[in-house]
Amino acid sequence: MNIIAHIEASLHSAVAAGEIRGCPPKLAGAIRHAVFPAGARIRPQLCLAVAKACGLDDPGLATAAAISIEFLHCASLVHDDLPCFDDAPTRRGQPSVHSAYGQSLAVLAGDALIVLAFQSLARAAHTSPARLPGLLDTIASGVGMPFGIVAGQAWESEPKVSLTDYQRAKTGALFVAATAAGAQAAGADPLPWRALGDWLGEAYQVADDIRDVMADPQLLGKPTGQDISLGRPSSAIDLGLAGAIEHFESLVDAASKSVPDGPSAQALRKLVRLESERLVPRAACEQFRKAQTRTPATPSKSVTA
Amino acid sequence: MNIIAHIEASLHSAVAAGEIRGCPPKLAGAIRHAVFPAGARIRPQLCLAVAKACGLDDPGLATAAAISIEFLHCASLVHDDLPCFDDAPTRRGQPSVHSAYGQSLAVLAGDALIVLAFQSLARAAHTSPARLPGLLDTIASGVGMPFGIVAGQAWESEPKVSLTDYQRAKTGALFVAATAAGAQAAGADPLPWRALGDWLGEAYQVADDIRDVMADPQLLGKPTGQDISLGRPSSAIDLGLAGAIEHFESLVDAASKSVPDGPSAQALRKLVRLESERLVPRAACEQFRKAQTRTPATPSKSVTA
Repeated sequence: MNIIAHIEASLHSAVAAGEIRGCPPKLAGAIRHAVFPAGARIRPQLCLAVAKACGLDDPGLATAAAISIEFLHCASLVHDDLPCFDDAPTRRGQPSVHSAYGQSLAVLAGDALIVLAFQSLARAAHTSPARLPGLLDTIASGVGMPFGIVAGQAWESEPKVSLTDYQRAKTGALFVAATAAGAQAAGADPLPWRALGDWLGEAYQVADDIRDVMADPQLLGKPTGQDISLGRPSSAIDLGLAGAIEHFESLVDAASKSVPDGPSAQALRKLVRLESERLVPRAACEQFRKAQTRTPATPSKSVTA
Repeated sequence: MNIIAHIEASLHSAVAAGEIRGCPPKLAGAIRHAVFPAGARIRPQLCLAVAKACGLDDPGLATAAAISIEFLHCASLVHDDLPCFDDAPTRRGQPSVHSAYGQSLAVLAGDALIVLAFQSLARAAHTSPARLPGLLDTIASGVGMPFGIVAGQAWESEPKVSLTDYQRAKTGALFVAATAAGAQAAGADPLPWRALGDWLGEAYQVADDIRDVMADPQLLGKPTGQDISLGRPSSAIDLGLAGAIEHFESLVDAASKSVPDGPSAQALRKLVRLESERLVPRAACEQFRKAQTRTPATPSKSVTA
């Protein structure tokens, strides 16, 4: 089974465990809607790739860490799409959870997914219980206070925010959790793997900003132009589109260079390269650069402190 | 230090750990607002009392389990008060979190509290890591799908619901988690302790229904009459107030009888008795019964299937 198919099957089986007789059917539907069909599943892929690079002696625990992180990511999307945040009608090309099931069930589906994330970890940890405290702390830190993705989202409610702190928390934190947890699930030291998650997470956030300005909503499966209309911190607004593309490329380069040497380093660097191409295709950047040379644009003024 | 002061100090120190420099200040404020000032803290008291009855050989882990359950309870209150659920302007006699901080921060504070619950467990589990998988699973099961408090809340979105299933999930599940986790944190078998949580949880939900009809909102610190106005399943509507009081008393009695024999059984039974008196004071019941004898009331028709 390839890695994506393995992740999908594991997500399906964890979700199905909560759908037994006696569960509220609409909540079950909302959870399924939030998790499937597949997104890019980059975080769990990254987690499993690092676990593999570290020896993968407990594949069940590594898989649980990977799907736990994906459930947390899905939970954050469901809550971020709510009317009190982005009010996004669509996600991954289908109605957002609150559009399909209403706000109450969207709030509850997000909550249930956060819980399912930690429950999935618990149920796979009997083989290596000594790894669970560190693994659980790493993953929880990627989500909660003070620097996890929930804190990142909360920066949008503050009058003053540093773009780097915001991006690091909103996206980077769960990427760091993915690489560190991959190492910990294999019994390895997470420290050398944190930089990869950190660089890649920042690259993802910058790519998101670029796509918010550049992409076609049909193609992206969610609305575009949200950052400007919601007054949200954005590299593409801060640095201008050309500057943001350059920044993205330097972050991907740093991510690739941060991969610790070893037999799996090449495979991990390939994953980084493929993902960066999927996120911000080089062809589109070249096209934009050519257009820029013909009509030089004035970079927008910063909207953040 | 008495047990309540110990719980408060532990909650304070866990919340403070997330409030370091670089965290978003409004989210930190919303979390603090959700957790303090103290509610009854009955779930953590119950958890610690059971851990004590089971030997309390790892007080740090038992305390973490207790505060973890309280954080999950606080998170559920913050989310249940949101406009898409109860739209409650007050809670514990102060503005609800969304009234004080807005909906976005209320959603995020609830999320952060769920995460903090599991993080608190992780950080206390290094001394007895072998207990963590079971403990984590027990606590997560009390909150998530298919039978935890999130599922209980989701039953309010279903057209047809069994009152017992609804109450067992909405309130009972976290009480069962509290007693079972207390035992597991002390390395004991959780099974003999589940019944206590189960009976007590049901008693709490019935007490809540009674108070929703009978109590003064000033005294309760939150709005009353919500069950009828929101069309929510309620024992007081289902059985009539007199029937609900009788049901409550039989549940408290069953809870008390379910306490496994042992040196701490008497202390636990005392806790049950004191709590039941705090929830539905006998004097108020007697007063109601006397009034009933003078003007017999017709029990309301059931609103649930």
